[in-house]
Amino acid sequence: MRYTQMLLPTLKENPAEAEVVSHRLMLRAGFMRKLTSGVYTYLPYGLAAIRRVENIVREEMNRAGAQELMMPMVQPADLWRETGRYDKYGPELLRFHDRHERESCLGPTHEEVITDIVRRELHSYRDLPINLYQIQTKFRDEIRPRFGLMRGREFLMKDAYSFDVDDAGAEVAYRKMYDAYKRIFSRCGLKFRAVQADSGAIGGSFSHEFMVLAKTGEDTIVVCGDCEYAANMEKAVVKIAEIDNTEPLADLEKVETPGKRKVDAVCEFMGIAPSQLVKTMVYLADGKPVAVLLRGDREVEDVKLKNLLGVADVELAEDKAVFDATGVPTGYLGPVNIPIRVVADQEVATMRNFVVGANEKNYHLKNVNLGRDFEVEAVADLRQITTEDPCPQCGGKLELTEGIEVGHVFKLGTSYSESMKAVFQDSEGQEKPFVMGCYGIGVSRVVAAAIEQNHDDNGIIFPVPLAPFQVVVLNLGVNDGVMTEASEKLYRELQEAGFDVLLDDRDERPGSKFKDADLLGMPFRVTVGKSFTKNGTMEIRRRRDGFTEEAGPDAIVALLKSRINEELARS
Amino acid sequence: MRYTQMLLPTLKENPAEAEVVSHRLMLRAGFMRKLTSGVYTYLPYGLAAIRRVENIVREEMNRAGAQELMMPMVQPADLWRETGRYDKYGPELLRFHDRHERESCLGPTHEEVITDIVRRELHSYRDLPINLYQIQTKFRDEIRPRFGLMRGREFLMKDAYSFDVDDAGAEVAYRKMYDAYKRIFSRCGLKFRAVQADSGAIGGSFSHEFMVLAKTGEDTIVVCGDCEYAANMEKAVVKIAEIDNTEPLADLEKVETPGKRKVDAVCEFMGIAPSQLVKTMVYLADGKPVAVLLRGDREVEDVKLKNLLGVADVELAEDKAVFDATGVPTGYLGPVNIPIRVVADQEVATMRNFVVGANEKNYHLKNVNLGRDFEVEAVADLRQITTEDPCPQCGGKLELTEGIEVGHVFKLGTSYSESMKAVFQDSEGQEKPFVMGCYGIGVSRVVAAAIEQNHDDNGIIFPVPLAPFQVVVLNLGVNDGVMTEASEKLYRELQEAGFDVLLDDRDERPGSKFKDADLLGMPFRVTVGKSFTKNGTMEIRRRRDGFTEEAGPDAIVALLKSRINEELARS
Repeated sequence: MRYTQMLLPTLKENPAEAEVVSHRLMLRAGFMRKLTSGVYTYLPYGLAAIRRVENIVREEMNRAGAQELMMPMVQPADLWRETGRYDKYGPELLRFHDRHERESCLGPTHEEVITDIVRRELHSYRDLPINLYQIQTKFRDEIRPRFGLMRGREFLMKDAYSFDVDDAGAEVAYRKMYDAYKRIFSRCGLKFRAVQADSGAIGGSFSHEFMVLAKTGEDTIVVCGDCEYAANMEKAVVKIAEIDNTEPLADLEKVETPGKRKVDAVCEFMGIAPSQLVKTMVYLADGKPVAVLLRGDREVEDVKLKNLLGVADVELAEDKAVFDATGVPTGYLGPVNIPIRVVADQEVATMRNFVVGANEKNYHLKNVNLGRDFEVEAVADLRQITTEDPCPQCGGKLELTEGIEVGHVFKLGTSYSESMKAVFQDSEGQEKPFVMGCYGIGVSRVVAAAIEQNHDDNGIIFPVPLAPFQVVVLNLGVNDGVMTEASEKLYRELQEAGFDVLLDDRDERPGSKFKDADLLGMPFRVTVGKSFTKNGTMEIRRRRDGFTEEAGPDAIVALLKSRINEELARS
Repeated sequence: MRYTQMLLPTLKENPAEAEVVSHRLMLRAGFMRKLTSGVYTYLPYGLAAIRRVENIVREEMNRAGAQELMMPMVQPADLWRETGRYDKYGPELLRFHDRHERESCLGPTHEEVITDIVRRELHSYRDLPINLYQIQTKFRDEIRPRFGLMRGREFLMKDAYSFDVDDAGAEVAYRKMYDAYKRIFSRCGLKFRAVQADSGAIGGSFSHEFMVLAKTGEDTIVVCGDCEYAANMEKAVVKIAEIDNTEPLADLEKVETPGKRKVDAVCEFMGIAPSQLVKTMVYLADGKPVAVLLRGDREVEDVKLKNLLGVADVELAEDKAVFDATGVPTGYLGPVNIPIRVVADQEVATMRNFVVGANEKNYHLKNVNLGRDFEVEAVADLRQITTEDPCPQCGGKLELTEGIEVGHVFKLGTSYSESMKAVFQDSEGQEKPFVMGCYGIGVSRVVAAAIEQNHDDNGIIFPVPLAPFQVVVLNLGVNDGVMTEASEKLYRELQEAGFDVLLDDRDERPGSKFKDADLLGMPFRVTVGKSFTKNGTMEIRRRRDGFTEEAGPDAIVALLKSRINEELARS
């Protein structure tokens, strides 16, 4: 493509409307323009990047045995009433009446439509398993659309739905999609992790989120630098070091600690490290008090506590509630003779001769030991993971990072098929509900996430598989016959060799062309400039790291080919 | 693809909801299923056919220098207010309020959105010409959706918009699209014509409709069997034979014709042919009477008369109005001394010594001649064309046929750019409105039209370029090791040779497989049946005409290749 013939309007300034990097760069690099809140037109450059993702998704879905179809965007309310979602979904579901006053909505997702098709067309276990997908425009009327394609109202999504005879079948389908997703995001050239996740409002039994790692993500996740382990903070399993603690048990002592209520103050006063103290936190679990013990320098992870206690809600008790429940002012609580339920983080069980509150104002106990001095109801993993903890899978070094959700796989079970009476006959002639899964990829969001992960101060740094053009050729002498002839020849040769190439044939200053090339983020730039006239060489520059090399025009095509193959092999 | 793994639900019976052939066959052949009125899910087989069209359209649009982008389906009302169409468009424009009570609509077309983009991004004549297109889902809330994909509410459309500096540029753009459309429909393997058309509600200066020829079309068109000429009935130019009429002028005679008012009755009574009589029809042109003369066996074409008179409306006058205007009862009217305006069809000027009414009850005149006995205000082409008229372009034989509109090219001019203040600076620094064109193809409709044109009693007959699979292999012995092995081997070989192939590996009776193969309409069928076990041969059958031939398994791939190339060369 020639730049002069392409609608590729770059902006020098950061648009005021853009709050995050990808949004800013996508506007500046002529990817898209806003039509109305959360609704964008994809201009040719942006659409080309989206198509790259779309094609990779389609190939891998087909490879996994899924079949493509296309469901409508306009859907009748009645179908949504069958699952109860017409009322439950909230105002994100855009509802309207058509000219005949029929209640309708714009599809934000297609569980109802696909389940309707399957219940009408498939009736026997012989028809299963089946996985049906589409790549289609969705609309969700977000209350506050923002961040460009990261949280838009109209967006392109791949959604797939699997139907199986039983749970075991559904798990095979789930695993196939999980593997396909891994291939998809790898092929996109992205750093990502699959993390186990809560399934959220869509319902179902278990799910994974696929997160593109980027500093600007919305979710905090824990990843291992040495293996594939990844988890949302609240789900990350803490694996404590196995300590063979042979320290002899010392005698229990009561110590006066006047006015020392905080961990740091007590430690300083007593000359110990926070790792030698056990703090006692009182929580209200569905309103009832429970004491949680954990090492002085640790934090409770509410979700883990909730799961252990089997309650809907946990909340740190305020001072008054603590006093009401225990008769002890906050700061001097301890597990010895405390009048409420006590649970302990697993780490406490490995500690000896630690310090706790004495359940008496201005006093603490030292040389306390679990088992000898007090008992607990349960010992479990109750704290937040830290980067000092080893990877629970391989023992490797953990990192905290931010992630952008780009894909989600759900094992739905039979909730939709049961409410919609979608049944088949099994091999014994019994009627059974289909066991379903659903699998989404935010196709347009992947492009935004790729940019969040791959950019620098000058602009986008496209992974090769997502770049609209792999190469941009800068003709720095559009009014110079020699440079123009060489640029045009190279442009033709690159096209013939199968490259997608942009020829910057604009009558602009070199500085402006360099700036735009960086902003647009194509993986390689070839400059035909003064050194061509002087020495007969062109410059190849790799966008990612600025690595440059010179070569004669006859060597460029082969050199670019091998450089691009290197990039593809890297990811 | 294996039939057993594909969602391809065929129906044996004609569905009650289907009124036309394509609708019936698309439901029976598992193309699609209705979700709600005029809204369909495209199942995998139907989507594959649509994608064939889509790919051809995209390739030819790109070849013509157009750039693909993607505009939103949800559009703000305010943009539509700028052109006045928010109020003018009628209830086909589906309007709604979003959660923030903003007035919005679902885009039935995108003139407003594209003009908004262009006015924001392009400011100089140097940026022009440009042609931007998308392949996108549209919604038009038709009052009575019917005929399946022929008149649906939600459908897939390619819409392109060109922007030029002046009329001459716009005409070049128009011609490029016209040529691209011819290539597109040729490549689809369809018989079609481009006919000059009224531009309809969308506004603009001139337009062509691309019509797929089919007996079940909605429009009547005149086509030449010998050249490319085609026109809508109302626009078809009549070219009358040049007659060197040397018959001497005879003396005017008044003849009593008691009670003879109709052309046939007068002719029979006077012993003449209708071609020797000139009838005088009184029309009300915007309410004022005008007499129209034409040969006894011809019909007036209202649109031509309207255009000649430059009026908004013409209407045949009722008897009372005729008498009020002329004082003569209907049936005895003639041009000699008639007290109202007279215009004549061109054919009348070639006639001599003809019969007309005498403007007196029960009398006609014979041997009347234009110029000697009366004058007219204008002589013009005013009548409907017939299949007896020669082609106005080449003199060839004309036919009347029905057509299905699948594409439309419009030269829009500056109506949109003026109302939306979309301007650029020309080479002299003057502000000018963009000169626009717009160009649509009903992508999903093309598939329906292709089926209307290509089917028989047994099902669809796909043109090779649109067929989801070029070949279906029927394994008639899924429980027979030899036949199955041969079928599977052929299936693999065909795939490796680049064919899109369906393997019918279902455990069904041969009759059922043959029926489905015919219904689905793939261009070639290969049967692996008893003759393979007996003689080691397979049968190739061409769907179009039932031509069959036998060949050994090693020869099938090459034979199919050459047969398919023959088909492609035919169209």
